[in-house]
Amino acid sequence: MRFQTLPGFRDFFPEDLAVRRWIESAWHRASRAAGFAEIDGPVLEGLDLFTAKSGPEIAGQLFAFTDKGGREVALRPEMTPTLARMVGARAAALPKPIKWYSVPEFYRYEKMQRGRLRAFYQWNLDVIGSDEPAADAEAIAVALDALRLLGLAADDVVVRINDRRFVARALDALGVAPDGAPELLGLIDKLERDPSAGAKLEAKLGAKGAAALRALCDDYPLARAEELGAVLDACREYGITSPLLPDFRIVRGLAYYTGPVWEIFDRGRELRAVAGGGRYDKLIESLGGPKLSALGFGMGDVILGELLAEKKLVPAKMPRVEVAVLAVTPELAPEARRIVARLRARGIAAETPYGVPKLGKALRAADDAGALRALIVGPEEWKDGTVLERDLKSGAERKVAFDEL
Amino acid sequence: MRFQTLPGFRDFFPEDLAVRRWIESAWHRASRAAGFAEIDGPVLEGLDLFTAKSGPEIAGQLFAFTDKGGREVALRPEMTPTLARMVGARAAALPKPIKWYSVPEFYRYEKMQRGRLRAFYQWNLDVIGSDEPAADAEAIAVALDALRLLGLAADDVVVRINDRRFVARALDALGVAPDGAPELLGLIDKLERDPSAGAKLEAKLGAKGAAALRALCDDYPLARAEELGAVLDACREYGITSPLLPDFRIVRGLAYYTGPVWEIFDRGRELRAVAGGGRYDKLIESLGGPKLSALGFGMGDVILGELLAEKKLVPAKMPRVEVAVLAVTPELAPEARRIVARLRARGIAAETPYGVPKLGKALRAADDAGALRALIVGPEEWKDGTVLERDLKSGAERKVAFDEL
Repeated sequence: MRFQTLPGFRDFFPEDLAVRRWIESAWHRASRAAGFAEIDGPVLEGLDLFTAKSGPEIAGQLFAFTDKGGREVALRPEMTPTLARMVGARAAALPKPIKWYSVPEFYRYEKMQRGRLRAFYQWNLDVIGSDEPAADAEAIAVALDALRLLGLAADDVVVRINDRRFVARALDALGVAPDGAPELLGLIDKLERDPSAGAKLEAKLGAKGAAALRALCDDYPLARAEELGAVLDACREYGITSPLLPDFRIVRGLAYYTGPVWEIFDRGRELRAVAGGGRYDKLIESLGGPKLSALGFGMGDVILGELLAEKKLVPAKMPRVEVAVLAVTPELAPEARRIVARLRARGIAAETPYGVPKLGKALRAADDAGALRALIVGPEEWKDGTVLERDLKSGAERKVAFDEL
Repeated sequence: MRFQTLPGFRDFFPEDLAVRRWIESAWHRASRAAGFAEIDGPVLEGLDLFTAKSGPEIAGQLFAFTDKGGREVALRPEMTPTLARMVGARAAALPKPIKWYSVPEFYRYEKMQRGRLRAFYQWNLDVIGSDEPAADAEAIAVALDALRLLGLAADDVVVRINDRRFVARALDALGVAPDGAPELLGLIDKLERDPSAGAKLEAKLGAKGAAALRALCDDYPLARAEELGAVLDACREYGITSPLLPDFRIVRGLAYYTGPVWEIFDRGRELRAVAGGGRYDKLIESLGGPKLSALGFGMGDVILGELLAEKKLVPAKMPRVEVAVLAVTPELAPEARRIVARLRARGIAAETPYGVPKLGKALRAADDAGALRALIVGPEEWKDGTVLERDLKSGAERKVAFDEL
C-alpha cells in the first residue's frame, strides 16, 4: 500500500461505520428522549480557546499549528471551551436550564495504547444553569439509558460516584492546603492505575494521613457526604437500576469539577471508564462565558465499542438492499430501472445491475447484498404485465402483477 | 465576546444543527434507498495523500502542518484520495461494483465569499468498478432523489451534462494538442463566471476556433456526443423528471474526469452548482489504488442550504420535548421523575423541571420547549392514583390513571 492512515486515526469501512452509527443512534435517542437539543462547533478553533483553561495534559496533546492567515489554531481536543463560548454568545436569550448534547470527534496526540486513539468520537451532554441535584442525576440516568438502548443490562455496568465538596472537606481535615489539593486529586485519581501513586500520596500526607485517605477509599462515609444523598435518590427516581457505588477514588483529575463526580465502568472493571462526568459550576465563567452553574459528561466510542464487542451486542452486518430487480434480457434493463425508481420513491432500498449479468450471477450478488427478494423481469412474464418475485431465503417464487409492485 | 469562531467556521446552535441533520438525513435516505453503503475516513491524513494527485487549486488551499511526531499532515479537503486508499486496501475482496457514500466535512483555506466557507459538509457518492452508462445515470438520479426528499420540485433544479470524451474530440478537431487541453478546460469551466475567460479562450484558439467553441456552447450537437445518449436514456428510466440539459460549458475543471460530467443548478441559476460529479476512470489507479473505473459526485451543505431557505423549505423549529411532567409540590417531584423515566423508556421525549417552579412558570417553559402535553402531578389527584393531562395547545384537561400512562 502506498498510503496509510496516520497512527491513531481510522478508516471506517461500511461494517465499521455501521457500528459507529449504531452507537451514535443510541446517544441521539437517549439525549432526545430526555429533552436535550443537539449542538456542534468547529473542528478547528483558535488555540487560545483551548490553552486558556484546559489542564496542561490536554494542552500538551493538541494538534496545533499556524494557519495560512497566521492564526494559531488547534483541532478540538474537547467540547467544553466551545460550549462555553456558545452559551456566552446567547446567555441572555436562552431559557435556563440549557440542555444540550453533541457527538463531536476529538483529536489528541496521545501515546498509543489499548482503547486510546488520536481521533475518537465522544458523546457530550451538559446541563447549564441548574444547581439542583436532580440535574446531576438526570445526566447519569441519560448516560445509562443509552447503554440500555445498546443492549447492556443494568448490572453490566456500575456507576462510581463521589462529590468534590466532600473531597475538599476531607482533604482540609487532613491538613492539605487548598493549593495542594489539585496535585493530591491527581494522585487519588491515579491510585488504581499507577502503582507509584500510593507512595507519592504517603510522601505528601505522611503515613497517618495516607492511611486515613485509604480508609475513605475502602469504606465511603456516605453520612458525611450529605450532598450525595439527594443525587443518589434522584438517580433511582430517574429509573437507574445499575449499582450506584459511592467511591472516594473517583475524583476526576481535572481541576474544574466542583460537585458530584462520577464514572461508569463495566462491572468486571476490565476496561477503563466507559463514561465520566460531573459538576463544574465555575468553568463556564472561567472560559469567558457567563456565571452559570453547569454539569456534564463524556462517553467515547472506543472503550464502549470494546465493551459492546465483548458482550457480543454488536449487531450483525446490515443488508445493503432489500429488493434486487433483475432483467433477464438487455431489452428489459430499462424496465428494471423503472421498477427500481418506483420502489425507491416509496423508501424501499432497491437496485438493479448496471449491465445485464447472467441471472444466476445476479441472484448470488443480490443475496450477497443482503436482499430478501428479487424481482425477475423476464420476456414472457413482462408480456403479461407481471414479474417473478423470488424469496432469496426460501427460493419460493410467485408471479406479481406490475401494477401491484 | 472573548473567543470567536475562526473565519469560515461555524457554530451550530440547536436550530442550525437541526437544519444540517435534516439535509444529512435526506442524503442518507437517498443513498440507502439506492443500495449505497456509508463509509468515512480520517479528518487528518498524511499530506502526500492530497498533494500526490489533486490539482494545484486544492493543494494551495490545504490546512497543512507538521504534527508532534514530525509527520507532514493536512485536514482533508476532499474524499477521493481517501476513497482510493480504502478501495485499494480491499480491492480484491470487495464485490464490484462498489457502491459507497459518505457525508464528511471538508476543510479548505479559501477566499471568503457567499456560499463558500472554510469548513463545509459534503455528500459524496461513488460507484467503483462499472463502465456502464446506467451507473452514471443512477448517481445523477440519487442526487435528485435527495433533493426531492428535501421538498424541491423536479423543475426547481436542472441537470447540465456533458461528456469529456466528446470535449476531447471537439478540442482535437479545433487543433488543440492534448497537453493544452487541461488549461482550455479550465477556461471553458470559467466561461460563465469569469468575464476574462472568453478573451483568454480567443487568445488560445484564435477568433475562428473560439467562435466554433462558442457555437458548441450555444447549441449542443447531441448527435455527435453519442456517449451521452445512453446516460440520458437511463436517467429517465431511473425516474428523473428534472430537465436534463446537454451543455458544452459543463466540463468540471479538474483534470481527472474522463466521461460524463454534470452539475445540478437551481432553475433560476442564481446560485453556484448545488452538486457536481462525473466519471473518473483513471483516478483511483493514479492515486495508488487498483485499476478500476469509477464515477461520483459531491453535494455540499452550503449552497443547498441557501436554495432550500430561498424556497422556504427549511422546516420550522423542532420541539425539544413531547411531554412535560410537572409536580405541584416538592414532595411530588420524585413521582414526576418516576413518570418521566417510564415515558423515556418507551421512547417518548419527556422531562420534569429539576426544581419545583410555580405551575404557571413551568407550563410556559413546557410550551416554549414545544411540548404538546403536560402531566400535572398534584396532591389530590395523586391520592386517587391519577394525574391531570393538559393539552398545551387547547388547554383542555382530563384526569388519567397513573397505570394508563
